[in-house]
Amino acid sequence: MVVGTRDPEVTRQRGESFGEWLEAHPDAGLTTFGEAAADTELVVNATSGPGALPALEAAGSDHLAGKVVVDISNPLDFSAGFPPTLFVKDTDSLAEQIQRAFPQARVVKTLNTLTAALMVKPAELGADSSVFVSGNDEAAKATVTELLQSFGHTDVIDLGDLSTARGTEMLLPVWLRLMGALGTATFNFKIVR
Amino acid sequence: MVVGTRDPEVTRQRGESFGEWLEAHPDAGLTTFGEAAADTELVVNATSGPGALPALEAAGSDHLAGKVVVDISNPLDFSAGFPPTLFVKDTDSLAEQIQRAFPQARVVKTLNTLTAALMVKPAELGADSSVFVSGNDEAAKATVTELLQSFGHTDVIDLGDLSTARGTEMLLPVWLRLMGALGTATFNFKIVR
Repeated sequence: MVVGTRDPEVTRQRGESFGEWLEAHPDAGLTTFGEAAADTELVVNATSGPGALPALEAAGSDHLAGKVVVDISNPLDFSAGFPPTLFVKDTDSLAEQIQRAFPQARVVKTLNTLTAALMVKPAELGADSSVFVSGNDEAAKATVTELLQSFGHTDVIDLGDLSTARGTEMLLPVWLRLMGALGTATFNFKIVR
Repeated sequence: MVVGTRDPEVTRQRGESFGEWLEAHPDAGLTTFGEAAADTELVVNATSGPGALPALEAAGSDHLAGKVVVDISNPLDFSAGFPPTLFVKDTDSLAEQIQRAFPQARVVKTLNTLTAALMVKPAELGADSSVFVSGNDEAAKATVTELLQSFGHTDVIDLGDLSTARGTEMLLPVWLRLMGALGTATFNFKIVR
């Protein structure tokens, strides 16, 4: 697993947390966006919302062509403070913007609806919960669903094509209010049916 | 319980369903919006989103003053077909529009995030799920929470002031996609924590 960033040396020296994480994960690499995307089969966009398109442009459209691009970002606009609003919504989504910018990428939206620690360790909640996948490429969604199941996700709901990401991106406003009301980010949506 | 409508006779004769429901519920009345609001302590706005403000205006601001107004409507815009978009969102909400139009009403947003049958009989899902309340009046939220608990809701989450209704109204886009993906409206969100 390789992490891409604008300037690896700046990232390595930024604060303590990322350098410590790298030391604790000797199999993980740190390099530029472009090199990270060149040498992988699956790209995860885990940038901030406004950073998504610039980071993927830095990764390079040639490096994204034909690859599964897992988009876990949220189009949060903090320009007016907290809680943030969404800079794209309802009639479009950040996932669709990414797909349009990189038409040869196989974009799958997922994991933007829960906090980072639970994305890869959902069992820490102590009860089953749900995650969603949206995308236009069925094989890409199947690959991502297997990845999610390998993390322990027991209820992966395929919402349909990538436009359904409008729905999951619009979950963020209630997610943020729930974080405030519950006093924790350690929660997740479960679809009871 | 009294149902308000623009023209009770038209409503009574419209199709079979409402007339049958009235016959099966002899304690329920049917009258105009204004009379329904005049003779009650608690008003439920169960109109379509675009119908909310006109219906409450027909009910009359004097009849709403000081009363708990439970707003379960959603600002759905079907003008471009299905799935609908939202005609107010993100930086405002239909609940806040109602509160601004009727400043003396004690508006509580709730129950807009699940299908009608489950609103009053959540136990039919066979497992616990969550509902949300948003409002500026703590006593009104307490009244509504008791009402929800009387329906069988076991997890009523107070999100905060009425602006938090922006979050629950923005749940509709994913609710609609879930209805499509699951092939049923009989589901609900549970906040696992």
